[in-house]
Amino acid sequence: SRRGIPEAILAEGKSTAQVVALAETALETTDRALLTRVSDDQVDALRTALAESAPDATIERRGTTVRVVGSDFDQPELGVTVGIVTAGTVDKPVGDEAEIVCADAGAMIDRVDDVGVAALTRTLDQVERFRDADVLIVAAGREGALPTVIAGLVDTPVIAVPVSSGYGHGGDGEAALAGLLQSCTVLSVVNIDAGFVAGAQATLIARAIHSARR
Amino acid sequence: SRRGIPEAILAEGKSTAQVVALAETALETTDRALLTRVSDDQVDALRTALAESAPDATIERRGTTVRVVGSDFDQPELGVTVGIVTAGTVDKPVGDEAEIVCADAGAMIDRVDDVGVAALTRTLDQVERFRDADVLIVAAGREGALPTVIAGLVDTPVIAVPVSSGYGHGGDGEAALAGLLQSCTVLSVVNIDAGFVAGAQATLIARAIHSARR
Amino acid sequence: SRRGIPEAILAEGKSTAQVVALAETALETTDRALLTRVSDDQVDALRTALAESAPDATIERRGTTVRVVGSDFDQPELGVTVGIVTAGTVDKPVGDEAEIVCADAGAMIDRVDDVGVAALTRTLDQVERFRDADVLIVAAGREGALPTVIAGLVDTPVIAVPVSSGYGHGGDGEAALAGLLQSCTVLSVVNIDAGFVAGAQATLIARAIHSARR
Amino acid sequence: SRRGIPEAILAEGKSTAQVVALAETALETTDRALLTRVSDDQVDALRTALAESAPDATIERRGTTVRVVGSDFDQPELGVTVGIVTAGTVDKPVGDEAEIVCADAGAMIDRVDDVGVAALTRTLDQVERFRDADVLIVAAGREGALPTVIAGLVDTPVIAVPVSSGYGHGGDGEAALAGLLQSCTVLSVVNIDAGFVAGAQATLIARAIHSARR
Amino acid sequence: SRRGIPEAILAEGKSTAQVVALAETALETTDRALLTRVSDDQVDALRTALAESAPDATIERRGTTVRVVGSDFDQPELGVTVGIVTAGTVDKPVGDEAEIVCADAGAMIDRVDDVGVAALTRTLDQVERFRDADVLIVAAGREGALPTVIAGLVDTPVIAVPVSSGYGHGGDGEAALAGLLQSCTVLSVVNIDAGFVAGAQATLIARAIHSARR
Amino acid sequence: SRRGIPEAILAEGKSTAQVVALAETALETTDRALLTRVSDDQVDALRTALAESAPDATIERRGTTVRVVGSDFDQPELGVTVGIVTAGTVDKPVGDEAEIVCADAGAMIDRVDDVGVAALTRTLDQVERFRDADVLIVAAGREGALPTVIAGLVDTPVIAVPVSSGYGHGGDGEAALAGLLQSCTVLSVVNIDAGFVAGAQATLIARAIHSARR
Amino acid sequence: SRRGIPEAILAEGKSTAQVVALAETALETTDRALLTRVSDDQVDALRTALAESAPDATIERRGTTVRVVGSDFDQPELGVTVGIVTAGTVDKPVGDEAEIVCADAGAMIDRVDDVGVAALTRTLDQVERFRDADVLIVAAGREGALPTVIAGLVDTPVIAVPVSSGYGHGGDGEAALAGLLQSCTVLSVVNIDAGFVAGAQATLIARAIHSARR
Amino acid sequence: SRRGIPEAILAEGKSTAQVVALAETALETTDRALLTRVSDDQVDALRTALAESAPDATIERRGTTVRVVGSDFDQPELGVTVGIVTAGTVDKPVGDEAEIVCADAGAMIDRVDDVGVAALTRTLDQVERFRDADVLIVAAGREGALPTVIAGLVDTPVIAVPVSSGYGHGGDGEAALAGLLQSCTVLSVVNIDAGFVAGAQATLIARAIHSARR
Ligand SMILES: Nc1ncnc2c1ncn2[C@@H]1O[C@H](COP(=O)(O)O)[C@@H](O)[C@H]1O
Ligand SMILES: Nc1ncnc2c1ncn2[C@@H]1O[C@H](COP(=O)(O)O)[C@@H](O)[C@H]1O
Ligand SMILES: Nc1ncnc2c1ncn2[C@@H]1O[C@H](COP(=O)(O)O)[C@@H](O)[C@H]1O
Ligand SMILES: Nc1ncnc2c1ncn2[C@@H]1O[C@H](COP(=O)(O)O)[C@@H](O)[C@H]1O
Ligand SMILES: [Mg+2]
Ligand SMILES: [Mg+2]
Ligand SMILES: [Mg+2]
Ligand SMILES: [Mg+2]
Ligand SMILES: [Mg+2]
Ligand SMILES: [Mg+2]
Ligand SMILES: [Mg+2]
Ligand SMILES: [Mg+2]
Repeated sequence: SRRGIPEAILAEGKSTAQVVALAETALETTDRALLTRVSDDQVDALRTALAESAPDATIERRGTTVRVVGSDFDQPELGVTVGIVTAGTVDKPVGDEAEIVCADAGAMIDRVDDVGVAALTRTLDQVERFRDADVLIVAAGREGALPTVIAGLVDTPVIAVPVSSGYGHGGDGEAALAGLLQSCTVLSVVNIDAGFVAGAQATLIARAIHSARR
Repeated sequence: SRRGIPEAILAEGKSTAQVVALAETALETTDRALLTRVSDDQVDALRTALAESAPDATIERRGTTVRVVGSDFDQPELGVTVGIVTAGTVDKPVGDEAEIVCADAGAMIDRVDDVGVAALTRTLDQVERFRDADVLIVAAGREGALPTVIAGLVDTPVIAVPVSSGYGHGGDGEAALAGLLQSCTVLSVVNIDAGFVAGAQATLIARAIHSARR
Repeated sequence: SRRGIPEAILAEGKSTAQVVALAETALETTDRALLTRVSDDQVDALRTALAESAPDATIERRGTTVRVVGSDFDQPELGVTVGIVTAGTVDKPVGDEAEIVCADAGAMIDRVDDVGVAALTRTLDQVERFRDADVLIVAAGREGALPTVIAGLVDTPVIAVPVSSGYGHGGDGEAALAGLLQSCTVLSVVNIDAGFVAGAQATLIARAIHSARR
Repeated sequence: SRRGIPEAILAEGKSTAQVVALAETALETTDRALLTRVSDDQVDALRTALAESAPDATIERRGTTVRVVGSDFDQPELGVTVGIVTAGTVDKPVGDEAEIVCADAGAMIDRVDDVGVAALTRTLDQVERFRDADVLIVAAGREGALPTVIAGLVDTPVIAVPVSSGYGHGGDGEAALAGLLQSCTVLSVVNIDAGFVAGAQATLIARAIHSARR
Repeated sequence: SRRGIPEAILAEGKSTAQVVALAETALETTDRALLTRVSDDQVDALRTALAESAPDATIERRGTTVRVVGSDFDQPELGVTVGIVTAGTVDKPVGDEAEIVCADAGAMIDRVDDVGVAALTRTLDQVERFRDADVLIVAAGREGALPTVIAGLVDTPVIAVPVSSGYGHGGDGEAALAGLLQSCTVLSVVNIDAGFVAGAQATLIARAIHSARR
Repeated sequence: SRRGIPEAILAEGKSTAQVVALAETALETTDRALLTRVSDDQVDALRTALAESAPDATIERRGTTVRVVGSDFDQPELGVTVGIVTAGTVDKPVGDEAEIVCADAGAMIDRVDDVGVAALTRTLDQVERFRDADVLIVAAGREGALPTVIAGLVDTPVIAVPVSSGYGHGGDGEAALAGLLQSCTVLSVVNIDAGFVAGAQATLIARAIHSARR
Repeated sequence: SRRGIPEAILAEGKSTAQVVALAETALETTDRALLTRVSDDQVDALRTALAESAPDATIERRGTTVRVVGSDFDQPELGVTVGIVTAGTVDKPVGDEAEIVCADAGAMIDRVDDVGVAALTRTLDQVERFRDADVLIVAAGREGALPTVIAGLVDTPVIAVPVSSGYGHGGDGEAALAGLLQSCTVLSVVNIDAGFVAGAQATLIARAIHSARR
Repeated sequence: SRRGIPEAILAEGKSTAQVVALAETALETTDRALLTRVSDDQVDALRTALAESAPDATIERRGTTVRVVGSDFDQPELGVTVGIVTAGTVDKPVGDEAEIVCADAGAMIDRVDDVGVAALTRTLDQVERFRDADVLIVAAGREGALPTVIAGLVDTPVIAVPVSSGYGHGGDGEAALAGLLQSCTVLSVVNIDAGFVAGAQATLIARAIHSARR
């Protein structure tokens, strides 16, 4: 593990056997394993394998992200809140990816879903929660306006994640990415669908705040 | 004039002599001339020339758009309101281009400037004015979030104009254009900086409403 | 429903179970459901489910768009005509998507298919119908010339929809989109294949005309 | 001269001295010189130089293209008509470039300007002239619809030239190029603003027809 | 049929039933049918159907192109040679598409395969055949250098077809297309893989030569 | 001022008069003014004007960034260190832009220049300083490898700024931006040359740490 | 075989029958066959076929590359070392492709895997091996920083291969390619995933060194 | 100097004063200075300054590249030939940049200009010289076919330099770059116009051959 952030196993494009083997190794060496972009079949195979090799391990799954925690894992606690906000249904798995990374590091999570700018009052209703977070991850697809809007309403640092929803020109998350890089409010950006990177960056900031608090 | 929309003279890339000649012809044949992307030098030359050839004509100038109105021009009146909204300083000339086209056709204009989403409360304060317009033109650069936000708050048809502000990736208005095509609220779009086209399209809608009112 | 436009359920990329559940909810809360980019399997599953949960509902299907109307639905009537024009076979489902949105809002539809510019006389033969519409939606793929040609022949506001046909450079609708943004006649544009957005925008204009007529 | 097509001197990006020297060499070796993208200053310098070095030579200039013809030049005659059609003012210099190449080879030219699709009846009025040509060059900028429309109305082979007019997305001639490659009528294409290449290709076809006629 | 060029049925993306129906209609109305991008399954279905509906018809297949000729078809003869040249194995089906269109119109075909520039002597060995053709179609993928090289060696008009071979940057035929538009020898271009368009354009030129010969 | 970050005046593209006026207003209302992308002429005019209107104000200039501080300005102090690292000469002004924003907010700055990866030992020599910072801004152009390398060596959160150096493919900072979004080490990104945004984001993080420390 | 480099058979996109036939021909005519991008099924079919037709041949397989060596093959020996370095797991098959080409030509191979810049010390540990090679091939995906870092540490010529790993903006190897073209250290580049070309180019250099050594 | 390759001073975008100062420092520390993309004014200023500060130094200038050699410079000699080949006039300065780097390192240069593929026989006439070089640099713009053609005729390693000539689609050297990456003959590539990098890479190969020869 680099910088205290666990190396995640990107399951997509790997064989089920490879994924299981990599997860078992991670579990042995770091007491837990983090897997992203996991298919249903890969999860099933993982369950079967771990029932044998690590029967005490707990398997958490959110969207396409999986975290396996060994019985010896010494869960840290940071006492710092990462707000994780998603605009629409399709943005949720990206938020999940970020959430599992932050939770693994012991951050407290405040998760807010379905506050896309098409129904702005729902967004505005949550402003206090956004302000109470120590750091915010905001994931949005299509035109990706949500992180820009939220960053204009809070003092919290915002990490924006463009999501690969939408079709036609600017689809695959490119419109959201370009818009976030051009944002007229202050925020920093990670790559399209890179929930893992956003979570890891938020964790580094949360740790800095945690150290300062002590 | 096609569809009752005056042909505008795109001054950019034309010589001053060409621009003056085209303006004089337009004035003679249609009792006014509309010029877009006009430089200071071209305006000066136009003033000098018209002082001779058309001393009774009035010269209106907003941003880089110029309208010359002959003394015989029979100003129509539509009794329909086009709301024209711009996000930042740099978006104003694009709004001006749209405004002059609509005003030429006799539409009533409700102009709202400086309501970019970075200061969202200023946007929200104007919602009633947006709702009262019959048709809205909203121009915004950089990430171009403003038309999306406004279209989520009103029932009025919104024509969005991406503006070529911003630098880096997605600059030249490309981020705003892509974001508006991906907008999660309902709107239609014209090309980057195409204030003229937005004004002409709003005019066609305004005329349809005007005809229906009679 | 936002702005009186029903939220459409984008079926593509959702599981059949999700699509059915979302449709049933929409039917319960708004007395009808609108689904776009629906597969054959999803339609079948929907039929089976609704036979149980909503036996009185009517299922309309055009191309890949489905509308479920509950027996209590109070169909509005606008008395305003939306012309919907498509260039080739492949553009029809995009026109269908637009048509169902407009029809749901009670607009009268005048549909004209197969009038691509390769056989220009067929286009010219329909000019009177194009002129009689209150607002026009024109969908065309490949080079997307049809909306430009029609917008030069009528006073009606034209909303152009580029369609993702064609292969090679400029395929996926990008040539048609760029050409429509550059159109030398006045029109506004929605994203590639965005029949739903075009229909919704036309509906907002139709409602404005309808209100004015009263 | 390759393939009987004179090598043209691309003046843009060369010093005035280089341009003059290259033109004088071409004149000496092939009895004429063809220069494209020539600036006013370069033309003046050329006139001054040739007044000394080649006082009998004739200097023809159309738009930004210049042809210098020596007194010994043996003008060929092809008896084949190349139709050269341009859509708007800005497309004319591209048509001029093509025209001078074809005329140099002795083709008869039928030139038609200002028949852009925004005023379709003007285009349709000229169909007989388009049909009477043996080969057609059609230059158009912005959305580049004109070559597609004309190719649908004639049996003559059409060579389309996209022109770098227009601003915003698809500007610099990219929309026109992509649209022409996607054209739903049969035509072949040369690069943006490549009037010289279109003229040269038309000349090769004209020569093939000329040979066949004998 | 437009311009005497048969409308081809683009089988890709159509159901087998649609393809068969369209082919039967074309056969009935024009005595033959031309189909491009046909799959093995579609060919089989076509054979079965035509065995019933048109037992006298002949089915020709080259690569992914199919031509069905009715017993009443009156095969024209042009007495003009179209040279069709391909660089590598993967370019052959594109050449086949062009060939079938030209042959349908009665052109004589001189086909040369496997003369890519990697083995330049093989190309140079065929120069006489290239020179003897009345018009040349040259198809090449990857860097697409072959049409440029050939056009430098002959006086014949060359129509270049970029082919969508190659992987990585510039794959999908984009490198070949861009290179052909930038070609330092005279040629005109059709879209990537557009063998049909190249064949149709060559046919129009061949007909012009044929008319001149009479 | 939004989020305690002063609005910067983007001088580029504004007239000297506008820039001076905006700076004077900012100075009056917030006791200082921050200007980015300022030309030499604009700085001179600013000096002249302020000598009259605000003789007590101090003018700081680094690269193309200018900060005017009024005599009443109450300089905050954060006691948090922002490390600012640049790769080459051309990256310095971008670092300066970031530095002035952070310094304005009272952060302590540790600036390290000329540690591009071409001379890796120079980079490695500074690792302790990178580790001692509370938050790092790393600016690099061309291939933009420096932020990736540093982020692999420290636990500090890294904000990467791609810089618009380099020519050819991937120039204008696009290669650096894409590489940073693809970085195999954890970091977040701002737009090309957006030193201001990086500095503002670092300031928000520094404030969060500052609050935690108290 | 051109330039002493065997023609490789690109198996991807060819039928199994074609691949087997091409391999058998290559084996007969050049005593071995080199196949790239081979699927599992294609390998199985090849094994079965060769068991019959060439029972003495040896089949080597690394990643997706296969080399069949006949019993008569006269293996050359170069006495020159090609270092082949890969950054991560996903880059290995690209390194394998290069390795098999170089080994076929008789180069000595020094292979170093898993030295991506995220764990820089592992890279630095291998510097002596990098320096001892006569020519280096370095393959890396995502941001592609590894070849840049290594080229700054050695005097050996470096051929960089960008690899198509990564998702989002700059995925498919485009970020790595652009970054390598912009590299601030000296290296040359081949296309994305083009391990074969890198191996062939390294072989040509190795042969030049080999000749010089004699 | 890194890897024995002198650091070049990229004059473009630097002030004349900066360029002079950097050149004087390089001359003092390494006994010579290498400057790329130098303007006429910068050369004049350099001459004036060096007349004072280093009257014994020799100033070599080719195209836009300048090399200043001090009287103490110990010119190495490699006894290895780098062939430098350019296609057209516009490619020469790129060849010059490469040539000066190689000559500085003591390589023998065999320079061949004006052998673009439009006049293929001129290219073929030089094949023996291409074969006699130890390493080849080939620079070509527009479609960039020349390096592909040459690499098919020789066993020498070829480093290809795409040049930013040409206008329209694929201009700025992008067509040539993409074509060279897709080349069907074996070569490696540097960025557009990167004559310096090509020369440096050729020098590294030349040194490896030189060492082997001893
Ligand atoms: N700013 C503008 N944006 C878009 N179209 C314009 C603009 N100004 C003028 N036009 C239109 O562009 C055409 C001018 O064409 P031309 O002057 O012939 O190049 C006319 O149809 C004008 O109405
Ligand atoms: N160099 C810069 N990069 C990004 N944003 C900037 C920069 N300089 C100023 N800004 C912001 O851009 C906006 C300026 O908008 P305006 O001056 O209205 O066009 C303000 O929010 C500034 O804080
Ligand atoms: N992976 C590869 N990358 C680049 N070129 C290849 C590769 N595999 C084979 N080739 C070359 O591509 C050509 C194959 O052409 P063909 O099989 O006719 O499509 C031959 O010159 C091969 O040497
Ligand atoms: N024309 C050129 N192309 C590529 N790199 C160059 C060129 N000229 C100079 N360089 C290199 O670019 C770097 C210059 O960095 P700097 O002057 O600090 O921006 C040095 O490593 C030079 O060797
Ligand atoms: Mg969104
Ligand atoms: Mg905005
Ligand atoms: Mg169409
Ligand atoms: Mg046009
Ligand atoms: Mg080829
Ligand atoms: Mg760098
Ligand atoms: Mg890497
Ligand atoms: Mg070339």
